[in-house]
Amino acid sequence: MVSNNSSIIIDFEPISRRLYHKKNENFYQLLVNSGIRVTSLCGGLGTCGKCKLLVQEGIKYLNPPTDSEKKLLTEEEINENFRLACQCYIVEDQIDFIEKHPQPQIRVFLPQELLVEDFKILTTGLNKGVNLNPNVKKVFIEVDKPSLKTPIPDLERIVSALSTTTIINKLQLEPSFEFETLKKIPLALRKDNHLITLTLYEENKIIDCEAGNTIANSYGIAFDIGTTTLVGYLINLNDGKIYSIASALNPQTAYGEDVVSRITYIKNNKEGLLKLNTTVLNALNLIIDETCAEAKISPSQIYEATFVGNSVMHHIFLNIDPIYIGLSPYVPALKKDLNILAKDINLRINRGGYAYILPLIAGYVGADTTGVILSSEIDEESDLTLAIDVGTNGEIVVGNKDILATGSCAAGSALEGAHIKSGMRAAAGAIDTLKIDPTDLSVGYTTINNKKPIGICGSGIIDAAAEMLKSKVITRSGNFNKQLIDHKNFIKEDKNLEFILVRKDQTSINRDITISQKDIRELQMAKAAFYSGARIILNYLNQTNEPNLKIKQIYLAGAFGNYINKGNAKFIGMIPDISDEYIYQIGNAAGVGAQNCLLNIELRDKARKLIEKINYVEIAVAQEFQKEYAQAMYFPHLNLENFPSLTEYNDISKR
Amino acid sequence: MVSNNSSIIIDFEPISRRLYHKKNENFYQLLVNSGIRVTSLCGGLGTCGKCKLLVQEGIKYLNPPTDSEKKLLTEEEINENFRLACQCYIVEDQIDFIEKHPQPQIRVFLPQELLVEDFKILTTGLNKGVNLNPNVKKVFIEVDKPSLKTPIPDLERIVSALSTTTIINKLQLEPSFEFETLKKIPLALRKDNHLITLTLYEENKIIDCEAGNTIANSYGIAFDIGTTTLVGYLINLNDGKIYSIASALNPQTAYGEDVVSRITYIKNNKEGLLKLNTTVLNALNLIIDETCAEAKISPSQIYEATFVGNSVMHHIFLNIDPIYIGLSPYVPALKKDLNILAKDINLRINRGGYAYILPLIAGYVGADTTGVILSSEIDEESDLTLAIDVGTNGEIVVGNKDILATGSCAAGSALEGAHIKSGMRAAAGAIDTLKIDPTDLSVGYTTINNKKPIGICGSGIIDAAAEMLKSKVITRSGNFNKQLIDHKNFIKEDKNLEFILVRKDQTSINRDITISQKDIRELQMAKAAFYSGARIILNYLNQTNEPNLKIKQIYLAGAFGNYINKGNAKFIGMIPDISDEYIYQIGNAAGVGAQNCLLNIELRDKARKLIEKINYVEIAVAQEFQKEYAQAMYFPHLNLENFPSLTEYNDISKR
Repeated sequence: MVSNNSSIIIDFEPISRRLYHKKNENFYQLLVNSGIRVTSLCGGLGTCGKCKLLVQEGIKYLNPPTDSEKKLLTEEEINENFRLACQCYIVEDQIDFIEKHPQPQIRVFLPQELLVEDFKILTTGLNKGVNLNPNVKKVFIEVDKPSLKTPIPDLERIVSALSTTTIINKLQLEPSFEFETLKKIPLALRKDNHLITLTLYEENKIIDCEAGNTIANSYGIAFDIGTTTLVGYLINLNDGKIYSIASALNPQTAYGEDVVSRITYIKNNKEGLLKLNTTVLNALNLIIDETCAEAKISPSQIYEATFVGNSVMHHIFLNIDPIYIGLSPYVPALKKDLNILAKDINLRINRGGYAYILPLIAGYVGADTTGVILSSEIDEESDLTLAIDVGTNGEIVVGNKDILATGSCAAGSALEGAHIKSGMRAAAGAIDTLKIDPTDLSVGYTTINNKKPIGICGSGIIDAAAEMLKSKVITRSGNFNKQLIDHKNFIKEDKNLEFILVRKDQTSINRDITISQKDIRELQMAKAAFYSGARIILNYLNQTNEPNLKIKQIYLAGAFGNYINKGNAKFIGMIPDISDEYIYQIGNAAGVGAQNCLLNIELRDKARKLIEKINYVEIAVAQEFQKEYAQAMYFPHLNLENFPSLTEYNDISKR
Repeated sequence: MVSNNSSIIIDFEPISRRLYHKKNENFYQLLVNSGIRVTSLCGGLGTCGKCKLLVQEGIKYLNPPTDSEKKLLTEEEINENFRLACQCYIVEDQIDFIEKHPQPQIRVFLPQELLVEDFKILTTGLNKGVNLNPNVKKVFIEVDKPSLKTPIPDLERIVSALSTTTIINKLQLEPSFEFETLKKIPLALRKDNHLITLTLYEENKIIDCEAGNTIANSYGIAFDIGTTTLVGYLINLNDGKIYSIASALNPQTAYGEDVVSRITYIKNNKEGLLKLNTTVLNALNLIIDETCAEAKISPSQIYEATFVGNSVMHHIFLNIDPIYIGLSPYVPALKKDLNILAKDINLRINRGGYAYILPLIAGYVGADTTGVILSSEIDEESDLTLAIDVGTNGEIVVGNKDILATGSCAAGSALEGAHIKSGMRAAAGAIDTLKIDPTDLSVGYTTINNKKPIGICGSGIIDAAAEMLKSKVITRSGNFNKQLIDHKNFIKEDKNLEFILVRKDQTSINRDITISQKDIRELQMAKAAFYSGARIILNYLNQTNEPNLKIKQIYLAGAFGNYINKGNAKFIGMIPDISDEYIYQIGNAAGVGAQNCLLNIELRDKARKLIEKINYVEIAVAQEFQKEYAQAMYFPHLNLENFPSLTEYNDISKR
């Protein structure tokens, strides 16, 4: 609206943010640098077309549409002044600009689907429960006072007092003092008459010294660092209860939607790794502040934080370059679990506090999968169990108490709404469940938060495919049914057929929400990746153990796995044909794994043994991969005998 | 001279520095905050009168002389516009000032004795030599490359390559990786074709990972943190040789001359501890830069730094509050030795490098004394040996291979030139040796750097006392000889007698350099503290071991101990009557102790055992202290039979 010294002001609606545009900055960079998280798959390269915005006033001050925009926007959109944030910028030199336009009017509207807000984040998960045996324990002691006859240093008098307590009598090792603790000792001792509380980490490491009795104030926080979402669980280490939970979108999303685009960002930007690292640490520190505010405690009362996350999130979080995870042979820098001083990674808990990071299994099977195994206890099951953690990459585990194997399938991000024309993440206004009436092809649906629909998220897409199959809108090979394409629900868009789910007057975006032929293909690739991945791991176990092993139960982990209609997931052939009662939706199992490791240190030993024991299968290089994958592209599979319980297919197949 | 926005410019000569005076800042604060180290005993409280300066122009803009100045400056000085830096400031509000005085002329002259420059710092010491067995070792290895069939993480492949080397075959423990090292691994591995050099600390801790063969680049630095001076010795850990030495005055001196005034500063200033800590760390980092520049290496090639220092310096260096060392019963926070990540104390060597701090013995017997014992090897002598480290506090050790005891005597800072009317530290222009001709009382002298005399330093003061005794200017009780006070070398200053050493026309300060009655008293107290301290420790050993133990040799450590005339030190009764050939000046023995601990880790074990074995004697609370001290106030002692070899006294005593 008005200029302020050397920057130009732009008003962004509907968020009512007034930003100062700087020279050589496009609108995408301006938004990201201002902390506004916007949708982008390509991280601002102008190839994904997701960062669409509407210039309401002041289009004349902007550069003309670029080739990228001409390709990714329709002619109509360009005429309406839609632009891609990463392609548009103010043309003139800013000083000239201010001189020439004393009161320029620039106003930009950010469509709701651009804004990364209001997301549905799964924080709960099935918890089988663990005994309380945390790594952090507090002990309250009275210390002798020094005298001229016995001028014993503070530290030695503390060690001597500690040796009389039961907690330290069990110790084999001499207590060691964290440097941060040493600094606190002289004042803490004299503040409350030589009565102090010590915080012990790993039995003998003393990481805090406080005046008086502070035993009640002992907390830990468990983190799940997802590619898309971050969740923190604040837990009191005296009773093992969760006192508060906070979640946020992973702000790294502004630099790329999935792990591959974030690796690309790091490769292409000199300070890229540090930038992504700082970004996620800031967000984690905000989660700490938020959980502490809710529980009315200070972050200095948190002594340990535990972490799960996929290997790329893990490396970035630790400021370790992840680029070699993205290059064959996809090795991580390390997989072992780590204990690191929280201050060394700029995590703002107690200055002497520690971070525990669960071990990775392989480059593409991360600490999140370790967490899933720990919390679901697949490794203690009698029956052979398939667990899948559904995300951009699908992690697959097959095993029981005797055998265990895992692998990763490149599911793509279709199930997160990416690469789907009307796709979106599970945010407010996303169609999450859907039914089609076979008699008239009318579509019934629900949306998240009951808002007017904006798009369709993963669970809705699975429902759409299953319902389109049942109502014969598509065939088992995934093609539109030629006999129905004259139905009013089909429209032709750029010569391609699309099936309308919601007509534009019913949406809040004034555009039809549709499923295109390409969308069906994306879904087929995703579900085939899961199914064939599970098959290849099972084949591996059949070869290395007894043949003809059969999967007896399925665990669906992850946010997405929690919200899908399991019957429909099976109907489209994403998961094997098991009776619904043996398919369990176990929620954020990775996060529960992090919690359990906070509560009981023995699980960390178990994790170390697990990653040595588990077999890693490189799915994409398996001999039979191409064949398995191609067969799984069909709904539910090329060979119907794999899905004997799905009797509806007899009817569908008649066509 | 001219004003610059909101600050006022003042020109300081002869250093040609133009400083910007800020509101509410006196001249002392202005100088200190600008990094100009000036003499002050009281740290700016207006009680010591050492920060005298001359206002050459612009006196009218300053406040009138304060009560402190009226007391500490002569009327003549005040008329000449001498001021105390800590008492004078610009009176008017600075904005008013600038408006009223568009071109104010303010010029200040800093007398040479005010400037803490050109100091003589002892860096060398007697080194008995140690075997080379440092804590840091480098190993060059070739690591296997990963493949799709064996996608082993970087870290595991490194551990596997390491296990084939001889260095690690000896290890009982699994190698552990410092977090800083982990971050370097992926790039270092791939930079030189999987050829890397690892740096091992404490045998199994891997603190650096570099591409290629960097075995030659392995350095350590040993530091001596003195109350007054800092010295750093850069040592190549492959050959054990010193590659460069740098020294500096301890800039904490600006906040107080001795440890007690620094503790007072910390007590009275909210951020005082942090300020002193930061100040000394900055100076140590500059020493690192300086030694590295001279040796043409990078600070990142330094992997370990070792430290000695008295207990207060030790605590401040570690940012641990030292105030309880200054209060009875004078206990330190800890005495054990420490290994701390250098980055945790903001020491700028390799990011994974460590600091090793030698153990303390007691609140007033610090790591410097531990260093003296280690390097002088008193604990391996057959003959009973007295070692004294002469400084503001004198540390005294008496012992041999069977027995060992130590204590500290409050010698005061007379031997550093403080509290002596013409006293100064051992800087350029200080009288360091002196002779008096008994026939005409004419004085011959030498000065440091052969500059025109400014004052007299510790070794000169000892010479002066001994020569005044021999020439009968003073008596054995320390009084001026009444028969000589009409001699032309005596003057009356404020009704008190002073003996002139150098007349003002021969000085560069245009004032007589004299020894007053009070100066003699200060020296008597200092020397009595040493002698009685040694006696009390010897008494302790006589009681707890065999009686009639006799001191057979003396080690004089420290800068001061190195420069004094040992015959004169004995003549005034500062040290026991031992033949000169058994009195050794061992130089900076504390610094050599730090070097030796860097070169050979076994000495650290030895230090740990030493501090458990050594007996600490609280000299000032010993029953016989008052009597011993009073007798030792005489020259050389009340009982001449303690000094049978000093036959000159037969002559002196005749008076």
